[in-house]
Amino acid sequence: MTRVTLDYANMLTPGLGGRGLDPQALEGELNERFREAFQEVEERRQSGEMGFFALPYALEAARTVQELADGFAQWFENLVVLGIGGSALGTTTLRDALLGPSWNELDEETRDHYPRLFVLDNVDPRTVSHLLGRLDLRRTLFNVVSKSGSTAETMAQYMVVEGRLRESLGEEPTRGHFLFTTDPSAGVLRRIAEADGIPALEVPPNVGGRFSVLSSVGLLPAAVVGIDIFQVLDGARDMAERCRNPVLKENPAGILASLLHHADLDQGAPIHVLMAYSDRLRSFAAWFQQLWAESLGKARDREGREVNRGPTPLPALGATDQHSLLQLLMEGPRDKVVVFVGVGGAMDPVEIPPVRPDLPALSYLGGHTLAGLLRTEMDASREALRREGRPNLLVEVPDLTPRALGELFMLFEIATVFAGALYGIDPLNQPGVELGKRLTYGLLGREGFERPETGTGDHPWRV
Amino acid sequence: MTRVTLDYANMLTPGLGGRGLDPQALEGELNERFREAFQEVEERRQSGEMGFFALPYALEAARTVQELADGFAQWFENLVVLGIGGSALGTTTLRDALLGPSWNELDEETRDHYPRLFVLDNVDPRTVSHLLGRLDLRRTLFNVVSKSGSTAETMAQYMVVEGRLRESLGEEPTRGHFLFTTDPSAGVLRRIAEADGIPALEVPPNVGGRFSVLSSVGLLPAAVVGIDIFQVLDGARDMAERCRNPVLKENPAGILASLLHHADLDQGAPIHVLMAYSDRLRSFAAWFQQLWAESLGKARDREGREVNRGPTPLPALGATDQHSLLQLLMEGPRDKVVVFVGVGGAMDPVEIPPVRPDLPALSYLGGHTLAGLLRTEMDASREALRREGRPNLLVEVPDLTPRALGELFMLFEIATVFAGALYGIDPLNQPGVELGKRLTYGLLGREGFERPETGTGDHPWRV
Repeated sequence: MTRVTLDYANMLTPGLGGRGLDPQALEGELNERFREAFQEVEERRQSGEMGFFALPYALEAARTVQELADGFAQWFENLVVLGIGGSALGTTTLRDALLGPSWNELDEETRDHYPRLFVLDNVDPRTVSHLLGRLDLRRTLFNVVSKSGSTAETMAQYMVVEGRLRESLGEEPTRGHFLFTTDPSAGVLRRIAEADGIPALEVPPNVGGRFSVLSSVGLLPAAVVGIDIFQVLDGARDMAERCRNPVLKENPAGILASLLHHADLDQGAPIHVLMAYSDRLRSFAAWFQQLWAESLGKARDREGREVNRGPTPLPALGATDQHSLLQLLMEGPRDKVVVFVGVGGAMDPVEIPPVRPDLPALSYLGGHTLAGLLRTEMDASREALRREGRPNLLVEVPDLTPRALGELFMLFEIATVFAGALYGIDPLNQPGVELGKRLTYGLLGREGFERPETGTGDHPWRV
Repeated sequence: MTRVTLDYANMLTPGLGGRGLDPQALEGELNERFREAFQEVEERRQSGEMGFFALPYALEAARTVQELADGFAQWFENLVVLGIGGSALGTTTLRDALLGPSWNELDEETRDHYPRLFVLDNVDPRTVSHLLGRLDLRRTLFNVVSKSGSTAETMAQYMVVEGRLRESLGEEPTRGHFLFTTDPSAGVLRRIAEADGIPALEVPPNVGGRFSVLSSVGLLPAAVVGIDIFQVLDGARDMAERCRNPVLKENPAGILASLLHHADLDQGAPIHVLMAYSDRLRSFAAWFQQLWAESLGKARDREGREVNRGPTPLPALGATDQHSLLQLLMEGPRDKVVVFVGVGGAMDPVEIPPVRPDLPALSYLGGHTLAGLLRTEMDASREALRREGRPNLLVEVPDLTPRALGELFMLFEIATVFAGALYGIDPLNQPGVELGKRLTYGLLGREGFERPETGTGDHPWRV
């Protein structure tokens, strides 16, 4: 069986012409640092704080999800997830990576009679209106996903949908069109579910939103559209096993975390570009961005000292974004690492026919495939960066299967908590978003919140 | 008439609790620096090097484009742009901003009988196959856009499409399904156009790809789908006039460039986040990313000294990406500026009905609109950042009309060349992408290019 692997030769001094990391450090200083980080994570895992580690083993919960999903898939033509951030990104990633970004445009036959899957992850009125206006609401299931059960954007979406359903359904109660995914006991969604008899799945309390893709949050929508969630979990389990190794060089998540942490703090490269060479992984890059940014961007370390740490993840798509970013990556400040993600095994490589063999500017392409060209663009970009002494990594995905996606999710989630330990911060919280929430409540006039002075009134600093 | 404006109070020391820029510098040091930059740009504009300045005034060219577009719009059901980078991003921005990201999913009636508009900006074989497989090729026009007429990805797309057309059309020649947009005389596309009688529009030689949206590159596809290109040019012209002012505080592009340049080099904030609060501006943020990154990321200054300059633009979407990035923006390193883009005048604000007035976690939302919530989220995020002493700007778009989009394009293009002058680099070239191109040619076996050693073979740095 082929597995996701990590090639980090282009992070090391021999490949980078003297820049980058001395490979001896992998068995010396970095290995020591990693051993401590591994120990810290292992303790938090065993204490139950890091519930995401257990998700690939929760097969009973997955079977419950599958049964529920099978029922829904027969009844409904559309599944709309109402959620934002960690409640949306994993689901979008599963859909786009495994079914393709155009799944909803396929006809029913091609979709094998599985429902369409929409993810409403914003409150832009035109997007919401447009989607609700063109779906047959009587054949639509709304999966409202909020761990806290109180996210403002998601609650607003729920209220708008409830209103539209009442208009569409007449006397029929709306509850049959909802499925909630939320905390097992706390929050207003749980309360409504209990009062109204709306089915409600559980997000384990020890699993944060951005680590929740392998819980019911991501698995239910995936199962409804026919994705083999047991294969996803199988891949995740396999990667979790590979990452339970305190020896740095044998631990893929350890290598990823250690090299990126080292690049940031020891080499002045805090910008981590994730550049995937597959349209199907565009959403994966956005999922990674949330995971890495929200987990590692912290004002204080675990001792409470102000550190203002955190790398900046930049999602990118190859080959397209070579035409946006490669110039900067090659010549700009040496403040970046590029994590390339290469995908093999495309089902339909698409041959480039030998059109115009008389023109050298075309003829060299004839006989190659689009898949081959895409791969070559990546190889050439990696090599060009290497020759400029610019560090880069390659995550190699032999084939973009449900299993491989499970491996990828787990690789990056575990790397994130390792990186949290290396940075000395807590990767599980997000205290910095509270002020914005309180200000939003205040501005909307929620009881118990003062209307803030925002100082956005008259001033001369406008042009 | 309302115009696009820039509010920069949250960049200045009074608002940021002592951090940020002393406002006196706007009339002192920064004003002096800007005057020199303005002078340099003015000279290059007058010498004809910066052709994009003239595009909003090229009404005759626009009328030619409009006439051609009117003809195509009657004949074809689909327009597919084959292009990448600057040949694609402007067109996608025009479509998504003015017609909505779901334009292609609307039925013909709702589209007012204008064609669908697809932009193939990558060579992912599954995306290309999927699109070509579901379109009626006999009713499809392909606009091949490449200034040089030799971009590998675009040439490959063209060859694949030519092959598919030959299969679909039988005896009928394929030339009626192509329109080229390329250099007036150089390049292989121009040669094929002349040999085969394929209509071909011109990209002015003094307009680079990333500055080309207001040339035939962006205007032709926009006109085909019914966008009022004269309104777009009108807005661009208006902004161009506002930016021909050597006084910093009176020049919107000057303020934008000067404040972001100052934040980077004098305050250690090289990451420039563009966060637009409208799903319709997601593509605009990607357009900005290319413009800012490729123009300003340079190894050498104009005297040839190695400087490795260039800020890193990060596109983001509000409110969605608050749930990815706000934690990092609030608490991480002080290495970022956020440029918020706020949009007023949404046509359908979507009221949030008073569902469950008994539950405080919902009731405070009832009676507000989704548009109001989105705006409030932005205001709250700006204020939260300000209170943490984190600099941010607001680009205010009163209504997302063709005119306003023209203003936005010109504002950011002019800011880019001002910033280039401030950084001391040439914003018009991209020497750093050449090595990658040569390596690609070599790897594909193009005549005259050596197959490179890439050192990606056997090595122990893999896990």
